[in-house]
Amino acid sequence: MIYMDNASTTWKKPPAVSDTVYRSLQEGAGNPGRGANAVSLGSSGILLRTRGLLMELFQAPQPENVIFKASVTDALNTLLLGLLKPGDHVISSVMEHNSVLRPLEHLKQKGIITYDLLGADEEGRILLQELPQLERPETRAVILSHVSNLTGTLQPIEKVREKLKNKDIFILADAAQSAGYLPVGLISHDLDAIAFTGHKGLLGPQGTGGFALSDRLNAAMEPVFTGGTGSDSLSLHQPMFLPDKFESGTQNVAGIAGLAEGIKYIKELSLDIIRTNHQRLTEVFLQELSTLPEITLHGPATSAGRVPNFSMTFATLNPSEAAFRLEQDFGIIVRSGYHCAPLAHKAMGTFETGSVRISFGHFTTETELIQLIQALRTLCEVQHGRLP
Amino acid sequence: MIYMDNASTTWKKPPAVSDTVYRSLQEGAGNPGRGANAVSLGSSGILLRTRGLLMELFQAPQPENVIFKASVTDALNTLLLGLLKPGDHVISSVMEHNSVLRPLEHLKQKGIITYDLLGADEEGRILLQELPQLERPETRAVILSHVSNLTGTLQPIEKVREKLKNKDIFILADAAQSAGYLPVGLISHDLDAIAFTGHKGLLGPQGTGGFALSDRLNAAMEPVFTGGTGSDSLSLHQPMFLPDKFESGTQNVAGIAGLAEGIKYIKELSLDIIRTNHQRLTEVFLQELSTLPEITLHGPATSAGRVPNFSMTFATLNPSEAAFRLEQDFGIIVRSGYHCAPLAHKAMGTFETGSVRISFGHFTTETELIQLIQALRTLCEVQHGRLP
Repeated sequence: MIYMDNASTTWKKPPAVSDTVYRSLQEGAGNPGRGANAVSLGSSGILLRTRGLLMELFQAPQPENVIFKASVTDALNTLLLGLLKPGDHVISSVMEHNSVLRPLEHLKQKGIITYDLLGADEEGRILLQELPQLERPETRAVILSHVSNLTGTLQPIEKVREKLKNKDIFILADAAQSAGYLPVGLISHDLDAIAFTGHKGLLGPQGTGGFALSDRLNAAMEPVFTGGTGSDSLSLHQPMFLPDKFESGTQNVAGIAGLAEGIKYIKELSLDIIRTNHQRLTEVFLQELSTLPEITLHGPATSAGRVPNFSMTFATLNPSEAAFRLEQDFGIIVRSGYHCAPLAHKAMGTFETGSVRISFGHFTTETELIQLIQALRTLCEVQHGRLP
Repeated sequence: MIYMDNASTTWKKPPAVSDTVYRSLQEGAGNPGRGANAVSLGSSGILLRTRGLLMELFQAPQPENVIFKASVTDALNTLLLGLLKPGDHVISSVMEHNSVLRPLEHLKQKGIITYDLLGADEEGRILLQELPQLERPETRAVILSHVSNLTGTLQPIEKVREKLKNKDIFILADAAQSAGYLPVGLISHDLDAIAFTGHKGLLGPQGTGGFALSDRLNAAMEPVFTGGTGSDSLSLHQPMFLPDKFESGTQNVAGIAGLAEGIKYIKELSLDIIRTNHQRLTEVFLQELSTLPEITLHGPATSAGRVPNFSMTFATLNPSEAAFRLEQDFGIIVRSGYHCAPLAHKAMGTFETGSVRISFGHFTTETELIQLIQALRTLCEVQHGRLP
């Protein structure tokens, strides 16, 4: 099997990830912050160390400014629901995943907020020049994906602030598709929050994720979910210090222990090397794709300004058929259909058809790429009657 | 090490739990409901099978009426925030965990709801007879823990509906401390929702949990967190069918695969046998405790109407000292301090001191119990100067 659905969830993971999850479950993942026994303290240490790794990765001011959530979706909901107040206006883009669009639409339907969306060009790059027209006195936040889950397009989120008249507007980034592939930091990218998932580029298990946030944003937010934190236990009020303010209930300790191993793997390899490898594979792939007129790529046609998520359609095969054939005939796992980004499909002209998404991961090899290209070539030739 | 903090998180787990989590991570936990490839479909199957097991356990009408959340805290927040509307009144009790009290208090502080709390007797049993005085025309829900996390007291939640004038009030149970130890079902206990955690009595990994709900309650609720569901991908609106209505983002597939193994273990052993074992251990323990005047038990003094969570204080040792000594001198892991249930501590007279909580699990043995008793006896004798 050749796995090329890494934008959904990465696989394989470094062996240390599953080994550590296993050991954590075997040796006893205690309940961090609950009691002072060895098992509980061991778990607290796991959370603290992983927070430290994520703090460095995302340039958070303190480990406590890294909040664990079960998914990037939970992280984005916590950020939006915890920040936005009646009358607020939000700017986002047509390239967003439903994890951003649906919370915004839900808040709009309830009459709490209004929002406007930046458009995108034919490569899926958001039209930042539209920002000044969309900004209003009541604009409270801009929320944008760093990389499109559909087209792989890298968005210029670091340039958002300079386009805003009101520099106090909060800028939130959805780094679901970029964390672990590209640098993204609160400081370097001038952001107030970075929402991340553990199970994609960071190579951790599913059920991990969260967000890093600035102190400025924290001061403007209230908790959404509240409950036991193991702190201020005698109070009926949620503690207002980080990370407890946003972390109630038992954390996924074994998963977070595994996530730390994924992050360590990435740090040791370095984002530079990861990026260089991906660009090399991308260049080969794009070159080959350009020789297959049966296939239309929807997204950046060069390796710059993208990660290796490729959205494509076939002239004579619908996406489900193409994906089915890739899996059945060639053992290549890709994703077909709609990719939880309805307006991005509209912007890219694939709203009626859906698309095939092929996404490389950290462990995609040149051999696999050659097999993929050969498979696509065969599929196209069969379609043109050149093979039986 | 003798682990007696099972009310925080159970340990050990059946070997199949960690084995399955490991295998799931190794073999590829795909992204369920996203695409139709083998990896994604395999993960969908894991969720469906686990839903089926939980449906049976909690008597849900359909597997879809079981919703996965990362913790019982997330489940309780989703239930309360999804159900309650401005002006609603809620009845709960002083015996609740902060995972219920803090969301209620938070909603009250925001001016959305009001709530009243049932009191408790000296064994921590809620005073159901107070219900008629607390019920109001605007009462929308009663939310109660099935078993107290502090005292282990089993609450008569199955008798709530008969005490209510308005039979349409929704009854929600927090089964964090009972699921996997005692039967609790939507039908048998006349409930509208059961919130559960995976990592305690159900023997699954941390990061798993959720709720089972009736169709009637579902019809009255709206989603809280929204986002990608892999369904209705072209719509900006959260799907209104179960389980997608309440499940956005990637689930903790490996964790849920492990949870299924925990539930299977319990089903094979049977709740009857688990209960019988626990009652036998409890009777021995209570008998021995009654011979130690240094120790005051706060909770039911008989094995009936409780699970083996024991909250206690020492005449001459504070709880942290006692717990520290148990761990250092005898290798026994317990929890000391406050147990995220402030009003329960008040009701039990341990608000000033906190308590030591000793909680047995599925794998607590008679040998361990004997060692515990011996340790407590030694601790008490040392305190009275009868030993060096």
